[in-house]
Amino acid sequence: MEALKEAIRREGVGIGRDVVKLDSFLNHRIDVALSTEMGRALYEAFKEDQVDCILTVEASGIPVAITAAQAFGNIPVVFAKKGDNINVGPDVYSAEVYSFTKRATTSINVSRQYLREGMRVLLVDDFLANGEAMRGLMSILLQARCQLVGVGVCVEKGFQPGGNMLRQSGVKVVSLAIVDAIQDGKIILRDD
Amino acid sequence: MEALKEAIRREGVGIGRDVVKLDSFLNHRIDVALSTEMGRALYEAFKEDQVDCILTVEASGIPVAITAAQAFGNIPVVFAKKGDNINVGPDVYSAEVYSFTKRATTSINVSRQYLREGMRVLLVDDFLANGEAMRGLMSILLQARCQLVGVGVCVEKGFQPGGNMLRQSGVKVVSLAIVDAIQDGKIILRDD
Repeated sequence: MEALKEAIRREGVGIGRDVVKLDSFLNHRIDVALSTEMGRALYEAFKEDQVDCILTVEASGIPVAITAAQAFGNIPVVFAKKGDNINVGPDVYSAEVYSFTKRATTSINVSRQYLREGMRVLLVDDFLANGEAMRGLMSILLQARCQLVGVGVCVEKGFQPGGNMLRQSGVKVVSLAIVDAIQDGKIILRDD
Repeated sequence: MEALKEAIRREGVGIGRDVVKLDSFLNHRIDVALSTEMGRALYEAFKEDQVDCILTVEASGIPVAITAAQAFGNIPVVFAKKGDNINVGPDVYSAEVYSFTKRATTSINVSRQYLREGMRVLLVDDFLANGEAMRGLMSILLQARCQLVGVGVCVEKGFQPGGNMLRQSGVKVVSLAIVDAIQDGKIILRDD
């Protein structure tokens, strides 16, 4: 998606060999116009796939999950909650997710009542890197007997294995931008 | 706001004397049409106040922060991050927030570069109860020398002190619905 690629070129910061910092518009400060446009792009990519519901994980997947749901005509968004949360209650689907960024494992949880059997669910997130969060969400969909429609993300780190592992297992993966490498602090985008 | 009050009457669960569970549309599963409407209602309440930016805290404040920002013509949203996060970096404004729900203190952090001196900031969240999160966000605005325009929340627990303490200190507080009490599992709304 060109507007996202432009924002990455203009504001993205590459750190070391694998950190892509897009804080200024994607996951700390949010460029709401761009987020709305990314939501529409995910809708365009999955509009033929009969999506009933969008599932993401808190927190930075939420903005694009909301804007995508708007583009789909206000379908519901469910966000998995991290850690133990007395607000969610015990009646949850749960999965363990390892975060390379935080170097820790967290449980993610979704109340059983919001994922009904047979529901067609699109997974959405801001980043796809090693695919740990997506594997956790897919485990939750399996437990809930929901159908995985596909995975839509804003930015895929193409030099990390998550995206290709999902594609090789037959999942429809749509990434609005793919970072192929970081070289001397410069973010190299695919098709650049 | 009538649509929100209807959703609370229809789907809200009162637990004990002080838990208001609105998981099914507000902060776990999101009713995106209602969220969009709540964003517009916050815009209506603050449209004369020259809002430059919306600040919230992850995670459940994010949906209505996004939809409000859309209503304001796509002003930026910044969400404070909880806990230590190596993605944010050390150059942050920080505050300690006690969560009665989680019975723990967390630090919330905002990168300094996203709050410029003099910026007029609207604080937004899903719930206002004891006001701890709002006090943390106000501390961050003070550190950043930003101007607090006001506080806009979806649901205020009128039987807890946060809202009135803010009003008594002169803050413009707009709550789209106010819960006055929980009686035998029933949520009593103000003006009902």
